Amino acid sequence: MTILSVDCMGGDHGPAVTLPACRRFLDEHPEARLLLVGGDALGSFNHPRATHVPASEVVAMDDAVEVALRRKKDSSMRVAIQQVKEGKAQAAVSAGNTGALMALARYLLKTVDGIDRPAIAYPLPNAKGGATTVLDLGANVDCTEQHLLQFAVMGSALVAALKNQEQPSVGLLNIGEEIIKGSEVIKRAGELLRSAAAAGDLNFHGNVEGNDIFKGTTDIVVCDGFVGNVALKTSEGLAGMIGGFLREEFSRNLLTRLAALIAYPVLSSFKNRVDYRRYNGAALLGLRGLVFKSHGSADAFAFSQALARAYDAARNNLLDRVQARIAHARPLLAGSPAEPQPAEAIASE
Amino acid sequence: MTILSVDCMGGDHGPAVTLPACRRFLDEHPEARLLLVGGDALGSFNHPRATHVPASEVVAMDDAVEVALRRKKDSSMRVAIQQVKEGKAQAAVSAGNTGALMALARYLLKTVDGIDRPAIAYPLPNAKGGATTVLDLGANVDCTEQHLLQFAVMGSALVAALKNQEQPSVGLLNIGEEIIKGSEVIKRAGELLRSAAAAGDLNFHGNVEGNDIFKGTTDIVVCDGFVGNVALKTSEGLAGMIGGFLREEFSRNLLTRLAALIAYPVLSSFKNRVDYRRYNGAALLGLRGLVFKSHGSADAFAFSQALARAYDAARNNLLDRVQARIAHARPLLAGSPAEPQPAEAIASE
Repeated sequence: MTILSVDCMGGDHGPAVTLPACRRFLDEHPEARLLLVGGDALGSFNHPRATHVPASEVVAMDDAVEVALRRKKDSSMRVAIQQVKEGKAQAAVSAGNTGALMALARYLLKTVDGIDRPAIAYPLPNAKGGATTVLDLGANVDCTEQHLLQFAVMGSALVAALKNQEQPSVGLLNIGEEIIKGSEVIKRAGELLRSAAAAGDLNFHGNVEGNDIFKGTTDIVVCDGFVGNVALKTSEGLAGMIGGFLREEFSRNLLTRLAALIAYPVLSSFKNRVDYRRYNGAALLGLRGLVFKSHGSADAFAFSQALARAYDAARNNLLDRVQARIAHARPLLAGSPAEPQPAEAIASE
Repeated sequence: MTILSVDCMGGDHGPAVTLPACRRFLDEHPEARLLLVGGDALGSFNHPRATHVPASEVVAMDDAVEVALRRKKDSSMRVAIQQVKEGKAQAAVSAGNTGALMALARYLLKTVDGIDRPAIAYPLPNAKGGATTVLDLGANVDCTEQHLLQFAVMGSALVAALKNQEQPSVGLLNIGEEIIKGSEVIKRAGELLRSAAAAGDLNFHGNVEGNDIFKGTTDIVVCDGFVGNVALKTSEGLAGMIGGFLREEFSRNLLTRLAALIAYPVLSSFKNRVDYRRYNGAALLGLRGLVFKSHGSADAFAFSQALARAYDAARNNLLDRVQARIAHARPLLAGSPAEPQPAEAIASE
């Protein structure tokens, strides 16, 4: 039996979204148990496989990292991660503030040997109908080639665990496919990733460009947190603009509304294909425990997807896989300059 | 009378696209003259305001920069830029290989005083119905805060010239709006841009995030060439995926094809709004002469838009504006970013 701890108070909507999501998830996963972490209101949730774990405080979406770390010691986010630390749950899930979640997870769980910095891995839908896992997406602004190798190894473990695909392909995000392209760090990262591939640590495809993320050229795309964050948010902006234009055009007048009615099945099937909610659930990788982050604005369906992702990762021993792969790649990672990154550098959602 | 020199041989299609585009442009701009640079085939183009300038070679889309610079000395691309250097044209336009165009333009025209590196500025459509000008998009992978300030000043000159908007707003691309976000270079760039705003060199909005590009939060978004290139190509990939899904859904079966027929006016009006061809024409900024780059795959409509953009820039004295703004910002461009200078001292320069 796999047990998840759920920060039921986090996100834009709190229990109004997390509780229906938990029920949905429990219905769909008869082997799962949940620890519902949060205030007394959760006590009214009755399910034979759910247990209420009390927590008296809530990390707000705009709380500074310091507040989450030093002041709110009984927050639902912290208590949820604590369940993982104490072995009472195999993974924690929260829709709360990303910076606070990363800082708390790092403080409570610590990083895996061989990992300097945890990373955030996000699945983005691709034209092949699957998802491309991109990391890092916001935790680390200045990365060395060693960090990029760590991301590649951890991302491979994640995709292997979630998709049952032993050697997922890895692309290094660059501004051209040729080896000579990119900054000095990227060129050195390319060399290191090729060495890792030669050592059997990775299935390295080579350089990829921004358009390859949505093409689905590789299973995984590795980049520093600054570039990853810009790519993710630029995509969100473009998708929002295109969606807005479509809606405006179809609601312009009576005729276009009629056209929308007739095209409804097509539009709704289209909408389903680009529905990012299906891919909700980012993994915080490199910690001695599993933590998954849901989008803060997730609805019950989206949040249940994040629970399902955490559940699959826990059942498929993501933690052991990350540790085993990192240990295997250790000769290449050795000599890696250990430079801890301050929590302030973590990007906001 | 404004004269443009046109590399008629460049791009994926050469004269088959550039000549119809030139005719269209001449029809729409009765005050313009064109120098059509390229092989003898161009001689058959008859127009009272077009002159054939012969060039015996063509820079191929996959030619290395060295080939364009050292071997093909009579290429249409080179001869087109040469017309600008010799004062025979006020701007050159090419749809050829970006790397070769930048290298030739830099070699022949040299950079403006105060500019270390030319930048490529691209207009991207935004949700407000206008365009957000993003730079740099590919020319410079590792940028200092000084480079980012140069981009901000040059981008302001470009938008001022093309949109008749004296103080366009500038955003610094970052992973959060707060001043403390981002890498060390970005934080120093933020300080420098604030100093430049205090000195009256810029209308600096502050940090922006990836989604602000398509929201249209600012007129200009400044970033290094690596990040800009990833943002641009990621957007192309996403737009391609969404367009592909829409097409697939509407052509799934007889019913969906019927729906497409009924929704045709709406879909075509939508398509027009997201039509990147309308925004074709990137400016190479920071050179002692105007050069515009069309997308290589441009069709005649798109190429004529690039001609129109170059024409507007030339008529509105973009070159003088860039030089004047750079001269005004000179104290900051030369000085240390750590010591913002008093506004009076700069204003009296």
